[in-house]
Amino acid sequence: MLNPSRERIGFIGLGIMGKPMAANLLQADYPLVVYNRSRPAMEALAAAGAKVALSPANLAQMVDVIITCLPDSPDVEAVFLGSQGVIETVRSGSLCIDMSTIAPATARQVYRAFQTRQVQFLDAPVSGGDIGAQQGTLSIMVGGEEAAFQRALPIFQAMGKNIIHIGETGAGQVTKACNQIVVAMTVQAVAEALTLAKKSGVDAAKVREALLGGFARSRVLEVHGKRMLEGNFQPGFKLKLHRKDMNIVLKTGQELGLPLLGSSQVTELMTALLAQGYGELDNAALAMLYERLGGL
Amino acid sequence: MLNPSRERIGFIGLGIMGKPMAANLLQADYPLVVYNRSRPAMEALAAAGAKVALSPANLAQMVDVIITCLPDSPDVEAVFLGSQGVIETVRSGSLCIDMSTIAPATARQVYRAFQTRQVQFLDAPVSGGDIGAQQGTLSIMVGGEEAAFQRALPIFQAMGKNIIHIGETGAGQVTKACNQIVVAMTVQAVAEALTLAKKSGVDAAKVREALLGGFARSRVLEVHGKRMLEGNFQPGFKLKLHRKDMNIVLKTGQELGLPLLGSSQVTELMTALLAQGYGELDNAALAMLYERLGGL
Repeated sequence: MLNPSRERIGFIGLGIMGKPMAANLLQADYPLVVYNRSRPAMEALAAAGAKVALSPANLAQMVDVIITCLPDSPDVEAVFLGSQGVIETVRSGSLCIDMSTIAPATARQVYRAFQTRQVQFLDAPVSGGDIGAQQGTLSIMVGGEEAAFQRALPIFQAMGKNIIHIGETGAGQVTKACNQIVVAMTVQAVAEALTLAKKSGVDAAKVREALLGGFARSRVLEVHGKRMLEGNFQPGFKLKLHRKDMNIVLKTGQELGLPLLGSSQVTELMTALLAQGYGELDNAALAMLYERLGGL
Repeated sequence: MLNPSRERIGFIGLGIMGKPMAANLLQADYPLVVYNRSRPAMEALAAAGAKVALSPANLAQMVDVIITCLPDSPDVEAVFLGSQGVIETVRSGSLCIDMSTIAPATARQVYRAFQTRQVQFLDAPVSGGDIGAQQGTLSIMVGGEEAAFQRALPIFQAMGKNIIHIGETGAGQVTKACNQIVVAMTVQAVAEALTLAKKSGVDAAKVREALLGGFARSRVLEVHGKRMLEGNFQPGFKLKLHRKDMNIVLKTGQELGLPLLGSSQVTELMTALLAQGYGELDNAALAMLYERLGGL
């Protein structure tokens, strides 16, 4: 087996998350090749010592481990399995890691396609936002085989802190879906409660403070509750991205035959805000809808 | 002004919460008179040194401070304002404190009735459950005038730890309503997420563990999430009591003209479980409904 510190890594998708994650791999002395649809992000990493590839297929020829961090399921499918995709050139013994947030079903489909080529695949979505990506403190939820997880672990440790191997392929994405459910519904709960306080003429800041002392305590009440009180909806985690994740959640529930009553309600509210042009705001902006509902 | 340690206290309502709260007042050397509809709880406190009253009106004649801890709004209204109620005998300069969870509107009504008699009134609902009541570690959310709050503070300190004066009369009950919204919707969020994990064939215990490391972290995920994983719905906080509180929440939203979309959905689920005979279970039993919805 290769010395993990020498694995050559290819990184595809240098967005708000991928770019700092790739930079952390360079920082940890991994030989790095990058690919991105637009050039500026590639040039920034090239200046820091990365090589640049011409396509996913071109990148896969140059590395041992291929990491993707892309917007949505179709992007991941195209980069791995499409024309000029990784699958055209990938060598047996390679490891593919998808760190995007996508449908568990898509993760399983890519895994199966690579399985016949003796290529390992992990689904490893993250949470912790762009700040976690920059600081190398992401939470990483991993699905896939144990051997692949052990091989990837030193790489994950260069990008994150709280790294958990949940189970088989798809389990990482299922965990991320569960995370997005809990965050979305807790944001709605806090919005509903703080709007009730305001509408009652009660100091919502004191209500938040009191609630933090008891069973209502959550990180969302702390962080998003504060944003709602200040009316400061600078992201944070953008509403449009959370809504995209909630679409994955709802589709997964539908495929499994599980009615996700709360998730579908909060997704409807997110969708309305998005259609009104507020997608770039933090997901805490849900509170705006409650203020309007109450005529505040 | 009287030395606070000498105020004579009357305590009405010796249920699962009131009885240990009254016992803590005795423990703190407050002279105590008690009244309860049924005798056994009164006898237990009499054995510990309390006097026993024949009615709320009889109790009010013997004390300086009257505390109530009762099931619902109509009980509080009857004990304070009804026939043989506190209002028939209460002396000006007395302090009434209602520690029940009731409608903010009822709290304001009782306050106004006493205001004309120069009797102080505080709404001071608690959270922390029967264990918090026994250990004297309740959170107490207080609404009412500052002078009344200062007078009551040493009494509160004998029963609780996290004592916050939120605002004017009713503000304590509004805060409790907000607390119950956030807890109920977070319980639903955790039930929905953990059921999705199970239905996906993913280890829900590992999902909970992973989620506790990030933005989905909450006390409900910790405590109720664990109960759901173990299928252990011993209360805790009984579903029927939480549903009662949610009825107050919904009524308050309706009176204010604020549609509480999430609260009404979770209350419907609670109401179904209650009608099916599960009211004595912990509120985490909501997860049972999701398991059934998913055919698990």
